[in-house]
Amino acid sequence: MTLHTPELRDHACLIVHGPDQIGLVAAISAVLTVNKANIVSLDQYTDDPDGGAFFQRVVFHREGLTAVMPDIEAELDETLRTYGMTWTLTDQSVPERMAILASTTDHCLLDLLWRHRRGELPVTIPMVISNHTNTAEDVRSFGVPFHHVPSQGPDKTEAEAEILRLLAGNVDFVVLARYMQILSEGFIDALGVPVINIHHSFLPAFIGAGPYKAAKERGVKLIGATSHYVTPELDEGPIIEQDVVRVTHVDTAADLQRRGADVERDVLSRAVTWHAQNRVVRHGNQTIVFQ
Amino acid sequence: MTLHTPELRDHACLIVHGPDQIGLVAAISAVLTVNKANIVSLDQYTDDPDGGAFFQRVVFHREGLTAVMPDIEAELDETLRTYGMTWTLTDQSVPERMAILASTTDHCLLDLLWRHRRGELPVTIPMVISNHTNTAEDVRSFGVPFHHVPSQGPDKTEAEAEILRLLAGNVDFVVLARYMQILSEGFIDALGVPVINIHHSFLPAFIGAGPYKAAKERGVKLIGATSHYVTPELDEGPIIEQDVVRVTHVDTAADLQRRGADVERDVLSRAVTWHAQNRVVRHGNQTIVFQ
Amino acid sequence: MTLHTPELRDHACLIVHGPDQIGLVAAISAVLTVNKANIVSLDQYTDDPDGGAFFQRVVFHREGLTAVMPDIEAELDETLRTYGMTWTLTDQSVPERMAILASTTDHCLLDLLWRHRRGELPVTIPMVISNHTNTAEDVRSFGVPFHHVPSQGPDKTEAEAEILRLLAGNVDFVVLARYMQILSEGFIDALGVPVINIHHSFLPAFIGAGPYKAAKERGVKLIGATSHYVTPELDEGPIIEQDVVRVTHVDTAADLQRRGADVERDVLSRAVTWHAQNRVVRHGNQTIVFQ
Amino acid sequence: MTLHTPELRDHACLIVHGPDQIGLVAAISAVLTVNKANIVSLDQYTDDPDGGAFFQRVVFHREGLTAVMPDIEAELDETLRTYGMTWTLTDQSVPERMAILASTTDHCLLDLLWRHRRGELPVTIPMVISNHTNTAEDVRSFGVPFHHVPSQGPDKTEAEAEILRLLAGNVDFVVLARYMQILSEGFIDALGVPVINIHHSFLPAFIGAGPYKAAKERGVKLIGATSHYVTPELDEGPIIEQDVVRVTHVDTAADLQRRGADVERDVLSRAVTWHAQNRVVRHGNQTIVFQ
Repeated sequence: MTLHTPELRDHACLIVHGPDQIGLVAAISAVLTVNKANIVSLDQYTDDPDGGAFFQRVVFHREGLTAVMPDIEAELDETLRTYGMTWTLTDQSVPERMAILASTTDHCLLDLLWRHRRGELPVTIPMVISNHTNTAEDVRSFGVPFHHVPSQGPDKTEAEAEILRLLAGNVDFVVLARYMQILSEGFIDALGVPVINIHHSFLPAFIGAGPYKAAKERGVKLIGATSHYVTPELDEGPIIEQDVVRVTHVDTAADLQRRGADVERDVLSRAVTWHAQNRVVRHGNQTIVFQ
Repeated sequence: MTLHTPELRDHACLIVHGPDQIGLVAAISAVLTVNKANIVSLDQYTDDPDGGAFFQRVVFHREGLTAVMPDIEAELDETLRTYGMTWTLTDQSVPERMAILASTTDHCLLDLLWRHRRGELPVTIPMVISNHTNTAEDVRSFGVPFHHVPSQGPDKTEAEAEILRLLAGNVDFVVLARYMQILSEGFIDALGVPVINIHHSFLPAFIGAGPYKAAKERGVKLIGATSHYVTPELDEGPIIEQDVVRVTHVDTAADLQRRGADVERDVLSRAVTWHAQNRVVRHGNQTIVFQ
Repeated sequence: MTLHTPELRDHACLIVHGPDQIGLVAAISAVLTVNKANIVSLDQYTDDPDGGAFFQRVVFHREGLTAVMPDIEAELDETLRTYGMTWTLTDQSVPERMAILASTTDHCLLDLLWRHRRGELPVTIPMVISNHTNTAEDVRSFGVPFHHVPSQGPDKTEAEAEILRLLAGNVDFVVLARYMQILSEGFIDALGVPVINIHHSFLPAFIGAGPYKAAKERGVKLIGATSHYVTPELDEGPIIEQDVVRVTHVDTAADLQRRGADVERDVLSRAVTWHAQNRVVRHGNQTIVFQ
Repeated sequence: MTLHTPELRDHACLIVHGPDQIGLVAAISAVLTVNKANIVSLDQYTDDPDGGAFFQRVVFHREGLTAVMPDIEAELDETLRTYGMTWTLTDQSVPERMAILASTTDHCLLDLLWRHRRGELPVTIPMVISNHTNTAEDVRSFGVPFHHVPSQGPDKTEAEAEILRLLAGNVDFVVLARYMQILSEGFIDALGVPVINIHHSFLPAFIGAGPYKAAKERGVKLIGATSHYVTPELDEGPIIEQDVVRVTHVDTAADLQRRGADVERDVLSRAVTWHAQNRVVRHGNQTIVFQ
């Protein structure tokens, strides 16, 4: 496994959540201190100090991390088990594997590929899958494998099966970069990794198809984009990031689409980056985003 | 009638709309030129150059305007009648009369009163009507009459009748500065002047009561406010202005309400100012805002 | 001393900074755990993980805080002394005492007074001092003492001495709410508490007098406001908060001033709130703002 | 000449500026009416209604424009000459020819090429010139000629001469897409077409080299980008567009650079689009941007 970012060598990220209790921070930091780890950043959030849920993100540095990782994991397990907490520990020098699903529209796809090439995204991109072929050459020019999986007709069973075959075991999360197909609940379950979507409106306004046309008809003065985790309910999953841009009566629905595209790619790239940096914790249908 | 803004003496604002046609601008500007009026600003918008609707806002300066106003009106009438256009001509030195309806919440109300005292709003404020008394002293300290019209119980007939009696003939438009009562269609019809509302969400998201609570539950990353003309359909009228502010998972519903209040008062004050300056033209359920 | 915010009863805020070291978080949180304190929020920042400076803000809840405060302070002192750290511990239920200095312009002053009345600012306001009298009635209507200290002529010695007499021992920090007098270095030293200013430009652009006129001349497309701690160098102190608003060629210098006023009051109120909540740590000529 | 945008066939843009006078709008629109042109949009600005400067942008549609263009020009010349006005008339179906100068940094360059391929920019791109070769393959993959003109050492005479040879007669304007060389006054004069630069700060803050490092040192809470016309005074030319993004104490100078890059490409693309649509009029060291 290639080390993606040299400056993250020997860095790990610990996410802990569960019932808030006195002594949690002390217990966790004691394990790190005993293991000679230096805490680089620490963020904590409690949704209700009186019996609520506790969320913590700790990034720490430990010389020779790989060798001691099993020990740290064992000690954290022993400690956090007594508090009834859920936790994950991630070696930050190992980038997440991110697959991209796309359709004909290229602005979000190209922006992710270009940011990756620049070194802005802490991920590897094992493949791009599209139900069209127009972006194949561009994708491959970035050195990323491109797979065409057509998805015509109402029955998506075969297409979804083919996509599952390609992704299985090869990815840590999937990004829908304006992929214009609705994924079945069965597909999402079988995939078993997080799926991040970009919706071209300020959710919950304008759920579903044609949001720019709907925005023009309603006469809104701002249009937006929303990146969220995909759940079986269309456009209803936990929101990671949103943003808006000002428009006026002069802008046509096509203008809204063009201006919205800039917001979409910015919002999606921020959501993807934060997810890949383990900054996003799902909590019911909401997200905690540690920044 | 007091002249509100000395620098607007001898200025008039002409709003024209109707079917787009060749020669309209020339015809209108010819009338102004013949009457020795200097065009200070001119904005035009056509929603479809091929047979669409034409909208124009012209502000002009004419020495001794009051004396020649009837002549200009007569000539405009003659000219624009042949084109089948709707138009209004307003002496800009005469401020619009704006009544404010409020409830207990004071942030939008006080902001309008402050701005008015500072000379920012080109209006007079003949009265504030509230269904509570808590703001009476503040309102009167600005030299503005305060009327208490209670509105308890499900039957609003008497309250609306009393409000109508107070407003009839005394106002050019009405602002609902977080007035927490739904006005009946009969009231709006009987009132006969525009009513501007501020809704505490980014419409069309979170229509109706409790938008901040709903926003917290949906986990949005931006909250907003919308100022719109009131129509019989709740929160569905033409939008004049909207804005948003960024929030995070840390913000409680009470925090959203507090931070949203700042957006509400800013959005409402812009909408009111633009309306009072004849910058807003209603077009179906949308607005043209000339800036 | 009145308890300002009941929900902050039994809450304390600990700020720690100094050289980054392994074990710091564990040591601090161990003291809190031993004293049965529950950590409500914790933010940590290290400007350089390799030998840099460490900053931490912890808010904790401890039933019956007042009684055990001396014990906690003693234990923290013992522990943090060995690490060579600087620290402050503040009972959050005791609001800071904030004096306001103002001149004729009232928008920032009134906004602070109104937010305070609404319960948004965790402070008491023992007095407002102005070199003009125009705001006296408004200030007193909020139940806040008003003092007039004229400041004419080039020699400010007497005025500054009078202000010092009024403030001495009565305030924890001072806000310059568009106070249009430059304070001498001697005054700032003698005062001995933080002074927060609002400058009407996006610093470091347009330092000094007349920033809106200078902005108009330069033809900028955004104007801004900056809140910062006052230092002897005019407009050069550590920045707490900034924001901007979009303008166009149509806006005159007077329009910029009017629109900038909205940004000024928003920026100042955020800076003041964060300061009063012990969220701002000065670090050289920069600030850490924990949010 | 390829017609770039079919929907702009038979559309022309007229820009008029000069001393404000009664009758100007009427005279101009009369010429258009006589020539059967339908005004699609019209914006007018007067910097001082009392003897100031007049600026107007008119877009009109005329069936069979090419054939009657000379007549319209002759009549406009005759009319506007009597008013002492400066004017330009542009066939909007003929795209402007835009050359791009770049260095190693690719984000602004690629963004312009993407937008152009997507049909967002109403220009042709006859060439990209760079003093480095790293972007050659990318540029050519868009079907755009790439020329390498090295620019080492203090003497830029030869490089500038070579660039002039390449551009002479082939371009209508030049964009510096993070071109890290200062152009001599002689070069700008000899070029004779507008040059648009993107500066990586919110001008006039942080003029010159290293603005992100300077921003970090000053501790600003927002960073920005500015697109302006190039004049002999470095970073002092008329500003076309600016924007900012929020940053915090956590962001390093490298983070500022990365986040600023997103603002740079957005700001530059807006400035370029508006320039190519004849929306920008220079007025002293300021710009009128008709939107």
